[in-house]
Amino acid sequence: MLLKSDLTIRQQHLQEEMQKQNIDACILTTSVNLFYMAGVIYNGYYYLPSVGDPIHFIKRSPEIFLDHVVAIRKPEQISEELLKIGINLPQNLLLEEDALSFSDCSRIILAFGLSAENVYNGSSLMRTIRSVKSEYEIEQIKKCAAKHIEVYKEIPSLYKEGMTDLEFQYSIEFLMRQKGSLGIFHSFGANMDIYMGSLLVGNNAEYPSPFDFALGGKGSAGILPLGASGEKIKKGNTIMVDMAGNYTPWMTDMTRIYSLGKVSDLAYKAHQVSIEIHDLIEDISKEGVLCADLYNAANKLVIKYQLGDYFMGTKQQAKFIGHGVGLEINEPPVLTPRSKEVLKEGTVFALEPKFVIPNVGAVGIENTYLVHRNDLENLTVFDENIIVL
Amino acid sequence: MLLKSDLTIRQQHLQEEMQKQNIDACILTTSVNLFYMAGVIYNGYYYLPSVGDPIHFIKRSPEIFLDHVVAIRKPEQISEELLKIGINLPQNLLLEEDALSFSDCSRIILAFGLSAENVYNGSSLMRTIRSVKSEYEIEQIKKCAAKHIEVYKEIPSLYKEGMTDLEFQYSIEFLMRQKGSLGIFHSFGANMDIYMGSLLVGNNAEYPSPFDFALGGKGSAGILPLGASGEKIKKGNTIMVDMAGNYTPWMTDMTRIYSLGKVSDLAYKAHQVSIEIHDLIEDISKEGVLCADLYNAANKLVIKYQLGDYFMGTKQQAKFIGHGVGLEINEPPVLTPRSKEVLKEGTVFALEPKFVIPNVGAVGIENTYLVHRNDLENLTVFDENIIVL
Repeated sequence: MLLKSDLTIRQQHLQEEMQKQNIDACILTTSVNLFYMAGVIYNGYYYLPSVGDPIHFIKRSPEIFLDHVVAIRKPEQISEELLKIGINLPQNLLLEEDALSFSDCSRIILAFGLSAENVYNGSSLMRTIRSVKSEYEIEQIKKCAAKHIEVYKEIPSLYKEGMTDLEFQYSIEFLMRQKGSLGIFHSFGANMDIYMGSLLVGNNAEYPSPFDFALGGKGSAGILPLGASGEKIKKGNTIMVDMAGNYTPWMTDMTRIYSLGKVSDLAYKAHQVSIEIHDLIEDISKEGVLCADLYNAANKLVIKYQLGDYFMGTKQQAKFIGHGVGLEINEPPVLTPRSKEVLKEGTVFALEPKFVIPNVGAVGIENTYLVHRNDLENLTVFDENIIVL
Repeated sequence: MLLKSDLTIRQQHLQEEMQKQNIDACILTTSVNLFYMAGVIYNGYYYLPSVGDPIHFIKRSPEIFLDHVVAIRKPEQISEELLKIGINLPQNLLLEEDALSFSDCSRIILAFGLSAENVYNGSSLMRTIRSVKSEYEIEQIKKCAAKHIEVYKEIPSLYKEGMTDLEFQYSIEFLMRQKGSLGIFHSFGANMDIYMGSLLVGNNAEYPSPFDFALGGKGSAGILPLGASGEKIKKGNTIMVDMAGNYTPWMTDMTRIYSLGKVSDLAYKAHQVSIEIHDLIEDISKEGVLCADLYNAANKLVIKYQLGDYFMGTKQQAKFIGHGVGLEINEPPVLTPRSKEVLKEGTVFALEPKFVIPNVGAVGIENTYLVHRNDLENLTVFDENIIVL
């Protein structure tokens, strides 16, 4: 059981980091981190001392088979129960400060008699640990990639003349589900509202969105101002398909461009530059490379080809061209102009240099890569040209 | 424009509550509350003083047309910009403590030079205000209900012999999208992972889940332990369909039971008791009624019919039979044994007394009701019997 040994290794990683930072204990409670550390999602609190076994304080759970389970009704019981078992309360604590609400976090801090200064950010530490993938996780990502590719291959067969962007997207979503898409889509941070992915057609690709994705789109209702808007797909439009790769818990991210008939020369040119950026990044990436260097190398090509006005949007331009992928769709590292992050062996990241061409739509591709010691492995090998419907 | 005047009334409500509680200002930043107060979702902060106009501090947004917009890059600029315009900084602040992360909340508190004691819970206040619906919102909910019913009517035509629960659910999801389901599904709280709703068949309805929904289900993967599990639908099984009513931003919640052939007498009996509970609640509900009284009246019937072992699950039993619905699927009030909440004119709530019958599945219905001064209006009028596929 690969996963079982993974759980032990993950625990060791976290405890090593805690020991380095002199942190006594850690409490995790978000779905993604529980799944990662305990192998199962329960409604409760995963308590890990810097040395020793984890204790699962559980309010409500599926049928699970874990050691060291303590039933509780509220977080205040964690400290009481620890004292009962004869475990000293920690003097400081790692909490998921970026994901847990202010109320929930404050309750735990108070129950342990700590102050905010004794609490450290477990969200960022967990995200860093999770960003390097194990053999088992890479296997999962490869399985996911295979399904992702299968779906993208079948997409042209779903198009029917006269379809709107939304109708086309619905058909793709249905195919995704039939191929085993888990539906749910975990992302990190407050500005990541999305549903199953993004499909952008024509000028809707220019439309700015409030969310932290690479591109926007008007959306179909004010409650979700992102993505497809209900417009009919027209001749000469591109259809950017950036739908979720969530066929296993560890995800892939992949974009391909479809078109209705021929598109403009500028659009073909920009698409080719996106492919050239991928080739370049594939050439220069390996363990130890700075993410900022990757962004800047890509941007140099964009400037050389005078495509800056279209790069990562027009009216609103995203300032990143790639991001880690895993249990969440947006993990570290992020490829930005001033990122201090470095590629590690086992890092999995999506690269998505895109252009938006007015009156045509979005062009450019996105692949998910695995970082090896000496090179990069493309996990989403599939036709990179603009695919005519 | 009904919505426009709604925005003014919502602002007045919030400011009245702030004045009552001596709160100087409020900052809202979650999608749901921004949409409610500003009529639009942006990436930024809605600042409302207890008297006067709101100011929109915006980092990133769709094309919007609002007065009093200030562009910022980070929350620390809010206080700086307020001082520049000559507005005194508030001595206390209302923040979305139940939804905003500890990190985000702490940043704002620090930037305003406040301490946690000067910050009050805006999440619960906003949820209380939102729980009473305006005419415009009720119109939206009624439109949503009509679509919800349309979909449930067509469900029998989607069933094909030999389908698994998941395959059936995929077809329903596709139909929902074609009928205009917005896909996204807002819920409140940390333990509400779900995708498009819940479809439970046979004994999978008994399976406990870690999430705070009425019933569970094993799910199809460890990363989403809820709902359909991939088992084939068998003769004598019920299929509980509790799929999202998200056709407008203001949602409806509705459950109906379908079956493959006849089910057991116990299942028919329990289903009838659920309908009887609905009739009873319809009879006794009006403005001013205590939610705890509704729960306890329902529970009395359950005891009378000796169905306690099956009520709201078997292995795990939920302790509520209803909840408010609106922009979030779980709004106040909650119908629990000790709830102190009271029905108000304009409250919209879903009632879902359900039973799980071993070897059959879940039975019982769920309707969404609107509270009037003297009675209750069922917004989801549709065949309540078990519908044979």
